[in-house]
Amino acid sequence: MSIVKLILIGVSLGVSSMVAASDNVPEDSHEIHYPSGWQNWSTLAVSHRIDNNTLRLILGNDVAVKAARSGNTNPWPDGAILGKVVWKETNLKNWNAAIVPDGFVHAEFMFKDSRKYSNTYGWGWARWVGLDQKPFNKGARICISCHIPVKGRDWVFTDPAGFPELP
Amino acid sequence: MSIVKLILIGVSLGVSSMVAASDNVPEDSHEIHYPSGWQNWSTLAVSHRIDNNTLRLILGNDVAVKAARSGNTNPWPDGAILGKVVWKETNLKNWNAAIVPDGFVHAEFMFKDSRKYSNTYGWGWARWVGLDQKPFNKGARICISCHIPVKGRDWVFTDPAGFPELP
Repeated sequence: MSIVKLILIGVSLGVSSMVAASDNVPEDSHEIHYPSGWQNWSTLAVSHRIDNNTLRLILGNDVAVKAARSGNTNPWPDGAILGKVVWKETNLKNWNAAIVPDGFVHAEFMFKDSRKYSNTYGWGWARWVGLDQKPFNKGARICISCHIPVKGRDWVFTDPAGFPELP
Repeated sequence: MSIVKLILIGVSLGVSSMVAASDNVPEDSHEIHYPSGWQNWSTLAVSHRIDNNTLRLILGNDVAVKAARSGNTNPWPDGAILGKVVWKETNLKNWNAAIVPDGFVHAEFMFKDSRKYSNTYGWGWARWVGLDQKPFNKGARICISCHIPVKGRDWVFTDPAGFPELP
């Protein structure tokens, strides 16, 4: 095989993998990369917001889960990522008194890095909207302004739920 | 080293590992082994029961998560384990309109094995109560009787929540 052919194959493989990546991974939100795989992270807590009729799952990466379950959350350690997954609410058809997820709204994340994000209180703030995970890019200040009530607890609303210790 | 010494070491290792196991892993519920590690399983859905003031996290083992996210849930495949984690509710101190977990109540599980559990509608039914995970052993009929409203959907209340596909 000629060198030209090998180069062409190399270029075409490189291009196709770039295309695959840009096809699949959502664009950055506030210059923060998409935290691929969050759908399988472990849970920190759940909530039901009765002021805007949404149900929420609060999950975390390994650093966050370890911190939450050992009570090391004020401040949260660098490397922790917290995710909040939001659905509109509905009533379960077969048990009307159970409020359950309806349509998916968005997934939003706080990335703890006290140096990198020192201008935004030690956290990177990001959100991806809808099932197609369109990046939110209207500015971290919008996120931060809602979190002012919890500025004294490292800007985090969530109290990690109690779980039995792992055997 | 004499054979007697080797046997003694073997016996002592065996005893200590038995002690460790019985110290740490909760006893069976309805003759079903404790599904160690469920605290880190991925989420299928969440719910808020306004008839008994509890919040719930519904999670699953790998077989269950794969089935849920591909819509393969009626019937659920053999090997699927569904877990429901229950907390009493409270209001979040810093955002009163958010209903969030208070004390942990119990974790209950359905183990799908259409042959092994053919006498109980294809599912093994188990529950471990409190943070010390005391096994519930009052009989699967108690579990099943509450699930009668969903006997036509493989005895499962949960509609898996919508998640964006993994990139």
